[in-house]
Amino acid sequence: MNPNAERALQAVEADVLVTADPFTVGWLTGFAADATSGPSAFAVPPIAVVTGDGVTILCSSDEAGAVDPARARTVPYEGFTTAPLDPAAGQLAALAGLRLPGPVAVEAHALSVAAAALLDEPFDVGGALRGVRAVKTPEEVATLRRAIAICDAGQAAAREALAPGVSELQAWNAIQGAMERAAGERLPLLCDLVSGPRTADVGGFPGERVIGEGELVICDLVPRTGGMYGDSCSTVAIGEPPPGATEAHQRAVEMLHLLLDAVRPGVVAGELDALGRSTGLGYPHHTGHGIGYAGHEEPRIVPDSATVLEPGMVVALEPGTYPGPWGLRVERVCLVTADGCEVLSRHGIDL
Amino acid sequence: MNPNAERALQAVEADVLVTADPFTVGWLTGFAADATSGPSAFAVPPIAVVTGDGVTILCSSDEAGAVDPARARTVPYEGFTTAPLDPAAGQLAALAGLRLPGPVAVEAHALSVAAAALLDEPFDVGGALRGVRAVKTPEEVATLRRAIAICDAGQAAAREALAPGVSELQAWNAIQGAMERAAGERLPLLCDLVSGPRTADVGGFPGERVIGEGELVICDLVPRTGGMYGDSCSTVAIGEPPPGATEAHQRAVEMLHLLLDAVRPGVVAGELDALGRSTGLGYPHHTGHGIGYAGHEEPRIVPDSATVLEPGMVVALEPGTYPGPWGLRVERVCLVTADGCEVLSRHGIDL
Repeated sequence: MNPNAERALQAVEADVLVTADPFTVGWLTGFAADATSGPSAFAVPPIAVVTGDGVTILCSSDEAGAVDPARARTVPYEGFTTAPLDPAAGQLAALAGLRLPGPVAVEAHALSVAAAALLDEPFDVGGALRGVRAVKTPEEVATLRRAIAICDAGQAAAREALAPGVSELQAWNAIQGAMERAAGERLPLLCDLVSGPRTADVGGFPGERVIGEGELVICDLVPRTGGMYGDSCSTVAIGEPPPGATEAHQRAVEMLHLLLDAVRPGVVAGELDALGRSTGLGYPHHTGHGIGYAGHEEPRIVPDSATVLEPGMVVALEPGTYPGPWGLRVERVCLVTADGCEVLSRHGIDL
Repeated sequence: MNPNAERALQAVEADVLVTADPFTVGWLTGFAADATSGPSAFAVPPIAVVTGDGVTILCSSDEAGAVDPARARTVPYEGFTTAPLDPAAGQLAALAGLRLPGPVAVEAHALSVAAAALLDEPFDVGGALRGVRAVKTPEEVATLRRAIAICDAGQAAAREALAPGVSELQAWNAIQGAMERAAGERLPLLCDLVSGPRTADVGGFPGERVIGEGELVICDLVPRTGGMYGDSCSTVAIGEPPPGATEAHQRAVEMLHLLLDAVRPGVVAGELDALGRSTGLGYPHHTGHGIGYAGHEEPRIVPDSATVLEPGMVVALEPGTYPGPWGLRVERVCLVTADGCEVLSRHGIDL
């Protein structure tokens, strides 16, 4: 049986679980709906059903081919059609057809009231599944390695594309192209690509701003492949860095190495966060976070977090500093091992 | 008051409406959540609330700045944070804080059971809002014109980028870049970009296939800007077209012109569909469809549709033929006017 299905039923203390939370569905099925073009008129978000027999996914007939049958059985409803269009009704009929015995655990924040009405004794599990995705299976680690390799390709392309006179959007297009060619497919892509004074704002999407000589560019690339997110960040100086940036960058890199040296099972996330802030870099964001079916998940490396690192967690660490009129950040992703961590990122982080 | 808010309350015959259907939310607020990177860990899909006072949107603090205050009041919950992360709970608290009087109309297929539980006498309006978006306001038509202009830029770039020895993904990168530069921002983008024998399959995302001499390429571009979708399609021959393709293309273009000539208020969508199929082109998809907050919406130009065209509807028409080992399609978007239609698309559709 799908190992995540077993962990899910244990976590919610039930024999049946029904959820449409996109991150839980990804974790249970390996499937994530297309995320390059906005919601589809021919599909609604997939629903995952877990029973002692395994996982079933209720998705459109157009999506069914992308579901790995080793992870989930598919019960499709009609997708693209010239007939009257009501994918939600199709999915609800598929759910009703399963005749699930109650009581049924649900994630009430993400399951429609129409779906819940079809279930026998539905009860909300609240946040019971929130941290359960943090420890990855070997198959998931393999997918994340592929996602990080795509990041590496994008970071290499950034170093070629970023130049004076090039707009952020032009550079972004080259970076996206390199990542998609590395993946062999279109990719959902979160990113920060900000130049000059925008770097003091931590991040943002690329815009029409033209990159100038002597500026910094923050390039944070978060592609999704196989339903899972990679992550990576570097800061690139265009020619001579602005005054103070070289020293600040060196301090950020040193802190990144200190953090990576500190990662091992048993470390408390809040203490790792405090280490990141201990030399006064001063960043308004997390020190790091888990990656997986969400681009930011447990273990969150944030102030006061009591989460304890375990082998199999995959953690992005990204200290930075934003004193203005510029800012910078560097990032590495690591896999927590039995006695430390393995750094998965290979991209250059020189200024 | 926002004209769509008034139409919504009339359609559902209620004084209060709460919905999280992404297309209805877009129509009511003009806001659509980012759709380039997959679901956010710091946000849940926005909820729109309509009362006699207008529209309120419950979105994250990171999204609030993108909401047009002329269309919707914003009640944000905390987005990006280093504190404990539970955007769904934040949104639910914001909803509870509105203290809406019942009975409250909801779209039960798209509102969470947790949200519905906070409402006084919620009742499902079913598909009451499904066709109500078909007639566009002048402001919406202006947004769609911008979306079509972005399509035109992409189609022009396609004619430059498509060449023997270039992979579909490489060409796609040039096309996407041209559209994003035309828009000045990253864009959610649905597309078909298929070459050679793949054209017989109607569509699909670009892949690693390398385009060859003497092949056709179907390029169907569907960018979203301002929450609304453009649409466009052309078929490009790489060098000498395959046998029969020139004649088939001419028949498709002639049919497209016949369809555009036939568009006027009072025409029944199913009859327009029958016209499209009357000369034996033989396509397995719709003859056309409305565009708006969804890329495919009413008026759907499909068999047996009883929908009647009205001024202010915006319709994409896209006859094609797929005899194998190739296929082709051409498309124009038009605005239904008082006595006919105005063609909004300006891209080339020569083979």
